[in-house]
Order: sequence, then C-alpha cells, then structure tokens
Amino acid sequence: MRTPVTIRDVARLAEVHPGTVSRALNAQTRALVNAQTAARVLRAADELGYRPNPIARGLKTNRSYTIGVVIPDLTNPLFPPIVRGIEDRLAEAGYTPLIVNTDNDPDRERSHIEAMLARQVDGLIAATARLDVTLLAEAAAGGTALVLVNRSLEDGSAAAVTVDDRKGIGLAVEHVAGLGHRLIGTVAGPQNVSTGHLRHVGFLDAMAAAGLTVDPGHVSFAGAFTEPEGARACAEILSHEPRPTAIVAANDRLAMGCYDTFARMGLHCPGDISVVGFNDMPFIDRLQPPLTSVRVPQREIGNTAADLLLAQLADAEEPARQILLEPELVVRASTAPPSAA
Amino acid sequence: MRTPVTIRDVARLAEVHPGTVSRALNAQTRALVNAQTAARVLRAADELGYRPNPIARGLKTNRSYTIGVVIPDLTNPLFPPIVRGIEDRLAEAGYTPLIVNTDNDPDRERSHIEAMLARQVDGLIAATARLDVTLLAEAAAGGTALVLVNRSLEDGSAAAVTVDDRKGIGLAVEHVAGLGHRLIGTVAGPQNVSTGHLRHVGFLDAMAAAGLTVDPGHVSFAGAFTEPEGARACAEILSHEPRPTAIVAANDRLAMGCYDTFARMGLHCPGDISVVGFNDMPFIDRLQPPLTSVRVPQREIGNTAADLLLAQLADAEEPARQILLEPELVVRASTAPPSAA
Repeated sequence: MRTPVTIRDVARLAEVHPGTVSRALNAQTRALVNAQTAARVLRAADELGYRPNPIARGLKTNRSYTIGVVIPDLTNPLFPPIVRGIEDRLAEAGYTPLIVNTDNDPDRERSHIEAMLARQVDGLIAATARLDVTLLAEAAAGGTALVLVNRSLEDGSAAAVTVDDRKGIGLAVEHVAGLGHRLIGTVAGPQNVSTGHLRHVGFLDAMAAAGLTVDPGHVSFAGAFTEPEGARACAEILSHEPRPTAIVAANDRLAMGCYDTFARMGLHCPGDISVVGFNDMPFIDRLQPPLTSVRVPQREIGNTAADLLLAQLADAEEPARQILLEPELVVRASTAPPSAA
Repeated sequence: MRTPVTIRDVARLAEVHPGTVSRALNAQTRALVNAQTAARVLRAADELGYRPNPIARGLKTNRSYTIGVVIPDLTNPLFPPIVRGIEDRLAEAGYTPLIVNTDNDPDRERSHIEAMLARQVDGLIAATARLDVTLLAEAAAGGTALVLVNRSLEDGSAAAVTVDDRKGIGLAVEHVAGLGHRLIGTVAGPQNVSTGHLRHVGFLDAMAAAGLTVDPGHVSFAGAFTEPEGARACAEILSHEPRPTAIVAANDRLAMGCYDTFARMGLHCPGDISVVGFNDMPFIDRLQPPLTSVRVPQREIGNTAADLLLAQLADAEEPARQILLEPELVVRASTAPPSAA
C-alpha cells in the first residue's frame, strides 16, 4: 500500500517551505509566490502525483490566512514554546499568527480581540486565564474558529487543549510519598485560576490516595504565581510545628520562592526539606539544587491547538474536541528521602 | 503652556484601551468598535479637546494595521521581551504584529516574508541574524516600512535598533580588570554573526585600552551560542598554561557552559576563576553563583523598533534612523578579585 503524498513531500522535492507549496497550489494565492518557484512546486506536485486533501478542496477560500493568538504575557516563560508550537503548524498550512498580550486585563483583551476580528482572522487560539465569553460567542457566531489553551469551558462548547493538572500534581505527591515522606505540605496557587484550583484538588486527592492526611497548617495559598508569594507561603508553612519534610509547589516560581525561604532559614534542600515544582521551565535544571518538577508538553500544546483549529477550518462540522495532554515528572536533586532526625 | 492632549489621556477618561481610541477616532475603523464605546470615546476626545496629530491626519488610510515581526526563534529567551516591547507600542497605535520564526533558515525566511507581504503588512520589523537583502529591498520598494533589530545594513539604508555590543563587552573587561585580573580570557561567539564579531572586537579593544595583552591561548571561539559550545571552548582555554583568572563570555549561555567546565574540573567560581556573561537572561540571578552579566535593554529595543516603524508610517520622508542603545553591567557573585595563589 502506498503512503499518500503530502505537502511536505512536495516541499522537499521542490526545495521550498511547505507554506510556499500551500500557496503555490492554491489558485487564489499563487500570485504571492515567485513565478519560477510556483512552477517548480507545480512540477514537483505533478511528478509525485500529489492530490490535495478532498476536504481541503471544498473549503471556502475567502480567507485572510491569519489566526489570532491571545496570550497573557509572552515574557512569561510558559508561553514562548506554546506560541512556537502553534506557529510551526500554522506555517505548514500557510497560515500566520497574529499575536497579542492581554496581561489578563479585560480592556486590553476586548480591544485586542475586536481588532483581530476586524482584521478578519480565520480563527482564534486563546490562552488567557480569564476570557470574555460574550466576545468569544460573538466570534464563534460570526464563523470564527476557536480553540482554548490551558483552560476549557464547563459545557465543552469550545475546542480546548489542556494538560492534566490533577494528574501532574499526583505524580509529584506519589514521588515524595514514595521517598518516605509523610508530612507533606503544599504551596498552592491562586484558587481563582483554573490551574491553581485543579492542582490543589489534585494534591488533596493524591494525598488521600496515598493514605496520608493533610495537616491544615501545611497548606498555604499564594496570591499569585510569583517567587515572593512562594517565599511568603513557604515561610507560613514552616512556622507550623511539626514542620513538613516535603513541599509540593503549584508551579516552579513558587518552588523558587521556597528556595529563598529555605536559604533565609538556613535549611538545606533536599537534606532538611524536599520540594517539587510544576512546569519544568527552561533553566530550572540549573538551579542549586536542580529542581524536581512536573513537565508540561508546552510545544505539543501549541501543535495540538493549531491542529484542532486547522481541522475546524477544513470542516465546519468538526466537533469541539477536548484534548487532555499528559504531564510527566522530571526527578532532579531537590527531592530526597526525609532525614532520620 | 499646555501639554498636548494624547490618545492615552482620551483612553483614561473613556476608560478604554488606547488602541480602542485609535479605532474609534478613525472613521475607517470606527465600525470595529462597539457603538456605545465609540460614542464614549468621541465624547471624551471632545471634552479634552483632543486633536489628532496633523501628520497622522495626512496619512494614507488604506492600511492593514498589521506589522510583520520576523525573529529567529521565540523560544530563545532573548526574543520574548523584544516582541512584547514591540507589541505594546503597536497596540497603542492600533496595530497588531504578525509573528514568524525563521530558525535562520533561508527557505523558511523567504516563505514567511512573502506571506506577510502578500497579507499587505504595513511594515516589517526583522530581528534575524541573516537577512535576504533582495527580498527586503523588494518590500521597501513596494512601500513597506522596515526596521532592523540587533543588526544594521552597512550602508545605513534601513532603520535599525542595535545595542552597543562593543561597549557592553568593554564594561565586562573593565570590571574584571578593575578587580585586579591580568590574565583575562574570552569565550567568543561565532564570528559570522554580527553580535559574535562585534563583541570579540570589543574585547580586543577593551583589553588594549586597559593596557593588557591577550594571550592567544586564552581565546576560543564557540561554534554556536550554546552551553555545550561554551563548555568546550572554556575547557580549551583552561588547558593552556598559565591559566586565565577571568573569562569574558560573549553571552550567558556560553558562560553557563563555562560553569559546567569549572564543575567538571573542580574549580570554584569565583574563588578560582571569575566569569562574566552577556544578555542578563531571566533567572540567571538564580544560578549558583549568580552570574555577573551585561544587561541588554530588550524591552526598550522592542519599544524603539516599533516607534521607528510608526514614525515611518506617519511620514514617508522619515529618514532611516540608526539607534544604538546602551548596555549596562550587572555585577553579581561570579566575579571576584583573583586569588593570591
């Protein structure tokens, strides 16, 4: 059986980028490609016997070939790999992302989304913690494809790509419990944000599953996912007797705040106390000690979100898929068995 | 004398984002704003006596209000703050960036830039190390505004925002020389990239200015700005007798590679050897030891690039300005006086 010829095969033979192949093969966009290049692509497609996807053929073609990507803040290290993952897949299909940062500010968000709809983006990928549901409903009603990232709507009415936060925290709890810790505390994230909430629920579930009780004095909530809030919450937990011997933090920045508190109190990590982070941010393997953390497949999140969006653009009947990606634990040197003391 | 009323003043009074004010005040884009909001903006503008900039009034209005931003790779921590700086300024003026990653791959770059020109971006901001000059010349001839970031054309024919790399490395050399180091080595970057080349020239100049001679055995060139290349180049330098007591690295990742080599050789930093990085990446203050580095004003680079582009859009006669921003040294714990031994 022959594998079907893809745009990538044509791109390889014509020695051009797959996006160029898309444009050259589409009569509406062919003028955008250098004439010689377009001729080379058409020859390559012919030689390989490339046939465009029949669904793709049936597409409405009055497209802007732009996709709006709405994120809170590109300088938060979580987002660049997600955006990169989105851009890579969109580029292969001949689409380009318009990117805006909202800082989770409602005015800024509304202004940006209105501007992108005005520019007739073919779809939106939104990774903001809060979302103006009315605005998105308007967009969807107007035929704009939509995919949510890192959050979903309760009624499942919008396609969404999320990571299994509860399972991720469960991996962290199982790991420290497996090392022999019994007094396990948590620096939880803000509870008005879904990641903060789900990770805390996951912590409580995993503790119960491990047969461990949670001392209320070992739980502290950070007001934001920042180092200072992590430091403050950690100090609160450590002022409680008996002290926990391990802390599960709701993200890496909170765990970094724990490091600050350990240093201030003269505690050695992992000798005196273990800590686990979440997200596996770039360079945290370079902290002292290198941080054990729950890895989130950020680039895959971006790839998957773009795939869902492209599927919607290819087929208006595409259902609102809910994709839950798996996290994994990366064990480094911030966790060890509890000291005998 | 009265300060002129700005779009920001109107935005504050109308309690909307400045981008919304831009759109509401422009008859061509007013329909994109909620009618009630537009009325509120017009009332606020009236109340404050806001007058649009007369240059702006004379603008051609057949605009896409999108700007193409071409970068090598968003997951390189240098770029998110630059892109954010660009987006912030563009948003205030009612523009949205289209963002593409080229990986410095010529095919990918050409395909992306063609796609953006086809989408009639009003301008391009390009931060790639290499650039297809023909393509950009075509774009400029077609009336597309252009600003280069982190590089410039030798003939100064394109507006450019760069950081004074030579001066930055000079600050690093002066710092370690001031601590008493005489045997100063360098892990230089790739010499086919302008940042690598200029920083190396700056190193040689600053050594001469400090009255120090450079031992050729204390100079090693990394093939790429990566940790493994930094580690390799550092090991090469340290195999040479007499060893240098300080190393100036052409960027932070090369300096992190030096840390790896120090650890492998059992050398204490800064007790046995000092090292300085360049870029002041996020979280390098959390390395052990925290890295002394040359800070580059990344967000300001982005702001300035957007300002230059907007100035070109406001006035076709705007000259191709060349802006050189100042770096500064951030002293942390990776540098100390040489040991008496």
